[in-house]
Amino acid sequence: MAIEIERKFLVKSDEWRSLASGELYAQGYIANEAGKTVRVRIVGDRGYLTIKGPGKMGGARPEFEYPIPIKDAQEMIETLCNQPVIEKTRYKISLGELIWEVDEFHGNNQGLILAEVELTSEDQEITIPDWIGAEVTSDRRYFNAYLAEHPYQEWGIN
Amino acid sequence: MAIEIERKFLVKSDEWRSLASGELYAQGYIANEAGKTVRVRIVGDRGYLTIKGPGKMGGARPEFEYPIPIKDAQEMIETLCNQPVIEKTRYKISLGELIWEVDEFHGNNQGLILAEVELTSEDQEITIPDWIGAEVTSDRRYFNAYLAEHPYQEWGIN
Repeated sequence: MAIEIERKFLVKSDEWRSLASGELYAQGYIANEAGKTVRVRIVGDRGYLTIKGPGKMGGARPEFEYPIPIKDAQEMIETLCNQPVIEKTRYKISLGELIWEVDEFHGNNQGLILAEVELTSEDQEITIPDWIGAEVTSDRRYFNAYLAEHPYQEWGIN
Repeated sequence: MAIEIERKFLVKSDEWRSLASGELYAQGYIANEAGKTVRVRIVGDRGYLTIKGPGKMGGARPEFEYPIPIKDAQEMIETLCNQPVIEKTRYKISLGELIWEVDEFHGNNQGLILAEVELTSEDQEITIPDWIGAEVTSDRRYFNAYLAEHPYQEWGIN
């Protein structure tokens, strides 16, 4: 098991766009209950199965991830996940020692852009780039598993 | 994906005991919703993660199974599965072309013994040994995921 410690932010400007190229992600959820999620993800021609446990304040969350055959991932996404699944382009941006992952959502989550940064400890000090907006680490609405069931375009805030 | 086609029966006598030696299984459920189950299993020093989709009449059920590190399986069973998990001894018995799996449950499912046989098609004709009792293929109470939440010893029929 890895413990994933992550902080998540809204993105307030487009300055990050010149810094990276993106890759298309599709992901669905086989289960989402009691803080536990079972996720199937396709990135290019790679498939992954990921189990996450309940998160804690501060952003730490147990995570188990396994590569699986792309064909299995496609079948699970088509037959075992609620539709439509999450589609987003993920941009990875190296700044100092950190890698920022900017997710630009598509489909019925179009309009939402989130930035995540993975930390080595919960109290790690980080430099926040200018294009980063409000922190939403503990706001469950921005969990991908929540967005899969309650897409951003249905929030009524746009 | 495999399609698992399985018939399940009660066991009505002890004649099967001389036919096989058993192996201890421990298994818990990370998720059990809408006919989909996510199971973690430990057999000896091997760990497995198994996703099953909704079953159909006749016993066919989509199944995806992956070996995982034993340490991951132990951590998931301890931290992500409802307690107590299912413990059983599984005996594999070859009879003709078929392999019968007899599960003798322990802990709070003690007293329950089930026999399963995997088929290659839903209409495959099989020879039923004398020690096999009533068929329970479609009776959800005998699903291991159900037994994990509603142990046999609490059924009030013993």
